[in-house]
Amino acid sequence: MTKASVSSFRVIKNSRQKNQQTNDLVAVEEPLEIIIDHGSKDTRVSERLAITMRTPGDDLELVTGFLVAEQIIKNRDDVVSIRHCQGLDQEFLGNTVKVHLHPNTPFDLEQNLRHFYINSSCGVCGKISVESVMGSCQVQPGSGPFISSKVIKSLPAALIENQLVFNRTGGLHAAGIFDQEGSALWWREDVGRHNAVDKVFGAAFLSNNWPLDEYVLLVSGRISYELVQKTLRSGIRFMASIGAPSSLAVDLAKKADITLLGFVSEHRFNIYHGSHRVKVEVSTS
Amino acid sequence: MTKASVSSFRVIKNSRQKNQQTNDLVAVEEPLEIIIDHGSKDTRVSERLAITMRTPGDDLELVTGFLVAEQIIKNRDDVVSIRHCQGLDQEFLGNTVKVHLHPNTPFDLEQNLRHFYINSSCGVCGKISVESVMGSCQVQPGSGPFISSKVIKSLPAALIENQLVFNRTGGLHAAGIFDQEGSALWWREDVGRHNAVDKVFGAAFLSNNWPLDEYVLLVSGRISYELVQKTLRSGIRFMASIGAPSSLAVDLAKKADITLLGFVSEHRFNIYHGSHRVKVEVSTS
Repeated sequence: MTKASVSSFRVIKNSRQKNQQTNDLVAVEEPLEIIIDHGSKDTRVSERLAITMRTPGDDLELVTGFLVAEQIIKNRDDVVSIRHCQGLDQEFLGNTVKVHLHPNTPFDLEQNLRHFYINSSCGVCGKISVESVMGSCQVQPGSGPFISSKVIKSLPAALIENQLVFNRTGGLHAAGIFDQEGSALWWREDVGRHNAVDKVFGAAFLSNNWPLDEYVLLVSGRISYELVQKTLRSGIRFMASIGAPSSLAVDLAKKADITLLGFVSEHRFNIYHGSHRVKVEVSTS
Repeated sequence: MTKASVSSFRVIKNSRQKNQQTNDLVAVEEPLEIIIDHGSKDTRVSERLAITMRTPGDDLELVTGFLVAEQIIKNRDDVVSIRHCQGLDQEFLGNTVKVHLHPNTPFDLEQNLRHFYINSSCGVCGKISVESVMGSCQVQPGSGPFISSKVIKSLPAALIENQLVFNRTGGLHAAGIFDQEGSALWWREDVGRHNAVDKVFGAAFLSNNWPLDEYVLLVSGRISYELVQKTLRSGIRFMASIGAPSSLAVDLAKKADITLLGFVSEHRFNIYHGSHRVKVEVSTS
């Protein structure tokens, strides 16, 4: 039942004007389903409380901490048992935890339900797998932009230069949309990673630039599954981050053929998928 | 209607064994209410779609990008107008955006609702303000721990040392609980900032250490309002971050009298509230 917390991916590391194939470790991101078994002997039922994206490992503690923070359990006695079990869907094998509450511990699903946004086609609800997401999301075929490694390495400095609030507070995430020559078209920041991306997408949309097939998205934070999904819907085929991607982000990028770069800096970057859109300059030294 | 993106706070900067009072800028975090006005002439209604925590600024773009990402709008024509307005609750003045959808643009609230977790007492739903949260959360009075600045500065290294997956992938957030002498009691990591905190809290709870009044929580990421709220429920009165806090996090920490430190490193840290729990060593140099 123990699932790995890290996953090995074949990546291309670009450094000193060279691409090199190697294996790299990525933090695993997978859904965890939380089922609550509650009620007295006669009325006992099992209900799904939530599905959350997490890194496997310490699952029982994660669920316990979640229940404590949400004030569903208050004392150790509230929990009769907590263990992995088969999910409502077979795909959740190893990704489902069932909590048996004490018969006297009150639980009202309606009051406690952490409803997730339910998208008509994609989302983390119900049957979650990269395949099911890809099957129902409309992936527009298209080659996207072709960007030189020199331009890629110039993007972080351009983004940071425009981060006014971050430079004053150190507390914000940023997102920027660039053209193939590395010119910043829109850049926005927010305390929320997703908000910063929503803001740049909104700016582009309101200025009648939509979809964004020919552009590049750079984000300051970690790239999660949800962020790739969001990007996919904007038409962008080339996304890069100053930070690391998660395993499910890489899986989705591969499936949707989105170029995904991580750890982009002035000197180097990793290509997790889509090197056919990256032009490597020949070293002149 | 334009709200500030940064806010100035009186902070104490600890550096070189000295505390110094100064003003410091913090990124603002406030709720934004999104109202959708939809339907044909006869059936037109306004409904609340979501409340999200965000940094004020570019609100219209944020809402547009959110609607695009959630596939509620697909073309520029779907939006007749988008503007700030008075919210359903007066407190949302300047924090509410109304979107008038084209009569032909379908919208089904039930299908699209981003339900938020509704806690019986606290939460970001409905009437949101630090006062209302504080009024309904049970804040247990108590002095909490008293920690030396030397111990505080030793915490980040102790946390990073224990971050096994992060060190291999660079993609994780971490949270650790320490005693007053700086010994790490529990430490966990996850792709999700909140998950890492849930995991350490769960670990403590399952080992029958609850509440955590006498301990210190250190997190690797930004401290948001929600994270302070979660911490408050664990009994912890002393929280620290390697990163920055948001404005609402500082407000809540002040109100609940939780000691809140930011930018903690080997050499320095900022005290946003609660210096009475920080023991400053006298410089020997």
